[in-house]
Amino acid sequence: MTDAAELTARLIRCPSVTPEEGGALVLLAELLEGAGFEVHRVDRNGTSNLFARWGAKGARAFGFNGHTDVVPPGDPASWTHGPFSGHVEDGVIWGRGATDMKSGVAAFVAAAVDFVTETPPDGAVILTITGDEEGPSKDGTTAILDWMERNGERMEVCIVGEPSNPDVMGEMMKIGRRGSATFRIRAKGVQGHAAYPHRAKNPLHALTRMLAELTAEPLDQGTEHFDPSGLQITSIDCGNPASNVIPEAATAVVNIRFNDLHTGASLTERLEAHAARIAGETGVALTVTAEISGEAFLTAPGPFVDMVRDVVSRETNRVPVLSTSGGTSDARFVKDHCPVVEFGLVGHHMHQVNERVPAAQVRQLKDIYQRVLERFFA
Amino acid sequence: MTDAAELTARLIRCPSVTPEEGGALVLLAELLEGAGFEVHRVDRNGTSNLFARWGAKGARAFGFNGHTDVVPPGDPASWTHGPFSGHVEDGVIWGRGATDMKSGVAAFVAAAVDFVTETPPDGAVILTITGDEEGPSKDGTTAILDWMERNGERMEVCIVGEPSNPDVMGEMMKIGRRGSATFRIRAKGVQGHAAYPHRAKNPLHALTRMLAELTAEPLDQGTEHFDPSGLQITSIDCGNPASNVIPEAATAVVNIRFNDLHTGASLTERLEAHAARIAGETGVALTVTAEISGEAFLTAPGPFVDMVRDVVSRETNRVPVLSTSGGTSDARFVKDHCPVVEFGLVGHHMHQVNERVPAAQVRQLKDIYQRVLERFFA
Ligand SMILES: [Zn+2]
Ligand SMILES: [Zn+2]
Repeated sequence: MTDAAELTARLIRCPSVTPEEGGALVLLAELLEGAGFEVHRVDRNGTSNLFARWGAKGARAFGFNGHTDVVPPGDPASWTHGPFSGHVEDGVIWGRGATDMKSGVAAFVAAAVDFVTETPPDGAVILTITGDEEGPSKDGTTAILDWMERNGERMEVCIVGEPSNPDVMGEMMKIGRRGSATFRIRAKGVQGHAAYPHRAKNPLHALTRMLAELTAEPLDQGTEHFDPSGLQITSIDCGNPASNVIPEAATAVVNIRFNDLHTGASLTERLEAHAARIAGETGVALTVTAEISGEAFLTAPGPFVDMVRDVVSRETNRVPVLSTSGGTSDARFVKDHCPVVEFGLVGHHMHQVNERVPAAQVRQLKDIYQRVLERFFA
Repeated sequence: MTDAAELTARLIRCPSVTPEEGGALVLLAELLEGAGFEVHRVDRNGTSNLFARWGAKGARAFGFNGHTDVVPPGDPASWTHGPFSGHVEDGVIWGRGATDMKSGVAAFVAAAVDFVTETPPDGAVILTITGDEEGPSKDGTTAILDWMERNGERMEVCIVGEPSNPDVMGEMMKIGRRGSATFRIRAKGVQGHAAYPHRAKNPLHALTRMLAELTAEPLDQGTEHFDPSGLQITSIDCGNPASNVIPEAATAVVNIRFNDLHTGASLTERLEAHAARIAGETGVALTVTAEISGEAFLTAPGPFVDMVRDVVSRETNRVPVLSTSGGTSDARFVKDHCPVVEFGLVGHHMHQVNERVPAAQVRQLKDIYQRVLERFFA
C-alpha cells in the first residue's frame, strides 16, 4: 500500500518553485513507471509536465489533474520548520505545497497506484501533472492537453485535486467556476481651468458617473449553481497635480467575476453600450478595452458529479456543497477536454508561511480517490 | 500730459518676471516723486512693492492697485516682437505685460499724475503697486496693506486695474469674486482579492459613490450677483497595478468655486457630513482635508460702484455688467481694507505669446481713471 502522507513529504523536499521542476516530476515518473504506468514528459517552453497512463490507450479512462509547482516560500526564517523540509511532527506535515497541492497529487498518485495494483480495472487511469499552475499557466496543463489531443489520448472524466474545502473535509466540491474579465475604461475629455468648466469637459465626472452606476446595482442575483456576478473597481488614475485644472484624461480598471448569465463578449458589449450612453450625455470620449481571463463554466450535475459526491459523503459523513466559487484553477482548461470536478483538501495555509497539513487528511483524500476509481469502473 | 501708452512701453522694457523687479518700480517711483507723490518701497522677503500717496496722510483717499510683475515669456523666438521690446507698430504695443497689466498700471499712474497736476483735489490719491501678483502673492499686496495698517494709511475705496473686459472696453467690471477651495478626499478600505469582495472594503466604490453624488446636482442656482457655485473633480488616484486586487486606499481632489451662499467652512462641514454618511454606509473611512484659497466676496452695488459704472458708460458707450466671474486677483486682499472694484483693459492675449495692446485702449483707460478721480473728489 502506498502512503500518500509519506509521498507528500517526499514531494515537499523537491524545491519546485515555479518554473523549477525540482525533482518532483522525476520522482513521480519513477514511482508510476514502477507501478506499470506508461509515462511521458510533456515539457514545453521550459515548463515541465507529466502525462501517465495505466491501461490501454483508447480504453475508457478516468483522469486526475494537479500541479507540483509551488509559490515562493518568502523568508525561510519565518517558518517554524523549513519550507522544503517535509518535516513531520505530531501527525502534521510541514512545508510549501503541503496543501496546495503536493498532498493532492500524492493522494491521487497513491490512490491510482494502489487501485491498479489491488483491483486492476477494465479501462485506463490517466494522470496529468503540471509544473506550472502557479505561474503564467501557458505551457502547463494546456501543453499536456494539446499533446493528448495530438496523440489520441482521452479522459472520459477528470478530478482536479486542488484544495476545495474551506474548513473541513467533505463540505465542498467544485463543479465549475465564474468567469473573470478585466476592463480598462479610458475617459478623454477637454482640459481646462477649474473656474471655467463650460470651456472644458471633465473626464472624471463622466467616469465617476459610469462607475457609480456600474456599482449601484448587482449584475444579477446569481443562478442555480452560481453566486451573483461581482464587479470591483480596482483602480482609477488621473495623475493631475494641479487642483485648479480640469484634467484631459483618466483611466479606470474594473474586474468582473461573472456567472453563466454572462460571457466575456456579452459583458464587453454591455460596458461599451454603457460607455457610449455616458459619452453621449457628457461629450467625454469613453473607450473600453477588455481582457477576458476565463469564461464561466459548469459541469452540470449528473451521474459523474453524483458519484463523486456520494463517495465523499460516505467517507466524510458530510454532503458536499456543489460550488462554483473561488479563484481560477486548471479546471478552466480541462473543462474543454471532458467533464471536470474539483475535490481536494482543506485550503488552510495556502500560499502562507507555515503551510502544513494533517497526514490523516491526506490519507483520507487518497481513500476517497481510490473509492471513486472503484465506483467508476464497477 | 502723461502718455499712458508710452509709459506702458517703457514698463514692458523692464524685464520684471516674478519675482524680479526689473526696474519697473524704480521707474514708477521716480515718475511719481517728480509729480509730488510721497513714495515708499515696501519690500518684504525679496518681493518688491511700492506705496505712493499724493496729498496729506489721513486725508480722504482714492486708491488704485496693480502689479508690474509678469509671467515668463516662454520661448522669445516664438514672439513676433521681443517680449521685453515694448515695440510699437500700427498703434499696437507689443510685449509681456501689455495687457496683464503694465498697461493698467501705466493708465492709473498717468491718470493720477495728470489729475493731481491739472486739478489738485482736496484729498489724497494712493497707489499700491506690487511686484508679486503672478507668483505666490504672499509678500505682495498683502505686504503693502500690512504696512499701511501699521502706518495709519487708508484708502476709502480702491480700483484694481486688472483686465476686466472679455472682448470690448466697457462691457464688464468686477465687484467681487467667487471663493475657491480644494478638498482632498482620502478613502481607506480593506485590501482583498477581487474574487472575494465580502472579505474586503473597496475604497473606490465609496469614493465613486460620493463623487457621483457630488457632481449629480449643482450646489446652488447662483445668487443676484454670483454665478452658480461649481464643483470639479480634478484628480482621482489609486495606483493599483493588480487588476485582481481590491486596493486599500485611493484619493480624490475636488475644487469648488463658490458664491456668497457658502463659505470655506460651510463647504468643509458639508463634505465632511457627506463623507461620514458614505463611510457609515460602506465601512470605508473617508477623510476630508480642506484648503481654502479664498472666500467669496462682494462690493455691494451702491454709490462707489454706481459712480465707476457711470463713468465707464459715458466713456465707452457701454453699460458694464457687474460681474463676479473669473479667477482670483489681489482684490481678494484689498476687499478686507476697503470697498474694491476691478476695471481695466480687454483681457486678450493674457499670459500668451505675442501679448499686445492697442495704444488707444490704454489711453482710453487712463481717461476713464482720470474721470473717476474727478467725480470722486467733485
Ligand atoms: Zn493550487
Ligand atoms: Zn494680472
